[in-house]
Amino acid sequence: MYTKPENGRVTNIKPLMAVLAGSPEATPPIWLMRQAGRYLPEYRALRQKASSFLDFCYTPEMAVTATLQPIERFALDAAILFSDILVIPDALGMPVTFVEKVGPVLEPVTDARGVDGLKPGDGVTDHLTPVYQALRILRADLDPGISLIGFAGAPWTIATYMVEGRGGHGFETVKRLMWQAPDVFGRLMDRLEEAVAHHLIAQIEAGADCVKLFDSWAGVLPEPDFARQVIAPTRRIVDRVRAAHPDARIIGFPRQAGDRYAVYAAETGVDAVAVDQSVTLATMKSLAETVAVQGNLDPQLLVAGGEPMEARIREMVAGLAGHRHIFNLGHGVVPETPPEHVAALVAAVRGNA
Amino acid sequence: MYTKPENGRVTNIKPLMAVLAGSPEATPPIWLMRQAGRYLPEYRALRQKASSFLDFCYTPEMAVTATLQPIERFALDAAILFSDILVIPDALGMPVTFVEKVGPVLEPVTDARGVDGLKPGDGVTDHLTPVYQALRILRADLDPGISLIGFAGAPWTIATYMVEGRGGHGFETVKRLMWQAPDVFGRLMDRLEEAVAHHLIAQIEAGADCVKLFDSWAGVLPEPDFARQVIAPTRRIVDRVRAAHPDARIIGFPRQAGDRYAVYAAETGVDAVAVDQSVTLATMKSLAETVAVQGNLDPQLLVAGGEPMEARIREMVAGLAGHRHIFNLGHGVVPETPPEHVAALVAAVRGNA
Repeated sequence: MYTKPENGRVTNIKPLMAVLAGSPEATPPIWLMRQAGRYLPEYRALRQKASSFLDFCYTPEMAVTATLQPIERFALDAAILFSDILVIPDALGMPVTFVEKVGPVLEPVTDARGVDGLKPGDGVTDHLTPVYQALRILRADLDPGISLIGFAGAPWTIATYMVEGRGGHGFETVKRLMWQAPDVFGRLMDRLEEAVAHHLIAQIEAGADCVKLFDSWAGVLPEPDFARQVIAPTRRIVDRVRAAHPDARIIGFPRQAGDRYAVYAAETGVDAVAVDQSVTLATMKSLAETVAVQGNLDPQLLVAGGEPMEARIREMVAGLAGHRHIFNLGHGVVPETPPEHVAALVAAVRGNA
Repeated sequence: MYTKPENGRVTNIKPLMAVLAGSPEATPPIWLMRQAGRYLPEYRALRQKASSFLDFCYTPEMAVTATLQPIERFALDAAILFSDILVIPDALGMPVTFVEKVGPVLEPVTDARGVDGLKPGDGVTDHLTPVYQALRILRADLDPGISLIGFAGAPWTIATYMVEGRGGHGFETVKRLMWQAPDVFGRLMDRLEEAVAHHLIAQIEAGADCVKLFDSWAGVLPEPDFARQVIAPTRRIVDRVRAAHPDARIIGFPRQAGDRYAVYAAETGVDAVAVDQSVTLATMKSLAETVAVQGNLDPQLLVAGGEPMEARIREMVAGLAGHRHIFNLGHGVVPETPPEHVAALVAAVRGNA
């Protein structure tokens, strides 16, 4: 299933793990959010074979194949498990449907009855057994030089989908619940925190080298709520994971945190902070004083490709040389991305380091 | 048409202008983005009478009435002209239609032919005569203690609508044009820069006390493009306006600029920077060392109202006491906002100062 990259980068030292542990690499390790996905024709062909998106995620052979597709094409330093942040609500008893051109659709959870009717947070790992099975297969198959990344959505971001019943709109309903029924919302967040911690721990035990916490909608929260709903639960999840696995490596991504990436880096205890494409190199350098920093090419620049993309890669690689930098995008690879641009990105990062 | 606020704040000194000129006020001046709009029943009734949204903007009596509706209800320190950032493409010969529940729709401008076929930038003021007429009426009617704000969209933000043909989606098309046809895109930006500068100057000459430049989509640009498409044109527009009116007061709003508000404040020459709701009080205080700072209550907190809103207002007013602060939201008032919450906001700001 897995073939070695042709550029001969196979090694027993994992560059991603070195940077997470505190050592800058001469060439920054490279991986891309959504590196497995719809921009790859082989992914689209595989996806056709599954009856639903969640079936796809829950069939270990398919998840493994999707995870390895970009690794077979490109000289990447890490494979990220093919899965979804919404397996958590599904495991808590709230089925998720992925609707073409709409995105995920859920029955909204908006009151005490809905929240208290969810399954226990520590029980999600039973439901998610196929996810861990996929990781165990990957762990055995994957070249030892390539890191294996597990992940989960962060509680706030999962809560937005569960309360709104869909993704990424005005956040009116979830904010209203948070402000007007803080007890109910707090119980939802507690349940999610427990579920996420268990899910991350189980992924590490199944062979993930490190885990990433995606807080995709962190940026929509004003300051006091960012502290309460992003920083505090992340800190507690990091503590729980480290209580189980003291050497666990954790990447946090509070997307669009703006001027709050630094406080997130300082207060959550994560090993690395991923930053979106709006963040400057100066801020990334400053963050890299205390954590590893991951990012942040604009995914649309990867669609455009050519000299504009390569010029920005040169600036990023030069600007962050000597720092704990993990090369990535500021958000996920979009479906319109030509796969050859990903190859050009990898070559440009390696060629300019 | 205009009645004095009942709290007796009528005065000959304009608190907003004092803060813009460099003096903190004991009570921060208050106004709200989209303070005239669909959340007010009297606005919805007025809107019914216009055949189209642009006709509404171009009928001075209607624009004046809409502008004054919130001033008649609430003890606000400023009236912002009722208009739209898309009067500029309309004046350049690209008609804009406002479609219910969709937003503005334009014929996209995506190539040299489209860009070079636009009308000259210095000619927009002829088309926009009714806007200036509305300002002249407002200038005469408005209580002398209340500031009158004119505004325009910034070139980058207007360009996103013109190239995409609609607002606020993935920005793929406009970014592709910017990166792949920089000459064509540069000519569009130059045209917009000239049009915006003329429009702002004409608004000041018609009686606006100050003007605001809305760069609503500034945040989607990565670092080098933010410098080129947001900071540089804003700097040139500020210089042009000041060349015509050396004492002009200008508020800039590079929405979701994240860690780049400070460089925007330092390099554009604006008198005030408006910040979105993601920005911390610490950053606002730091910005207020060099400019006035405007913001940044979450518009959804105004929808929620009650103690959560009032608690945040107390934090903001106390946190920014002694600084050059203009109280506002982080974005516009949304249609779901209960008008009585706006009254409560104003009372809470004044009561806690």
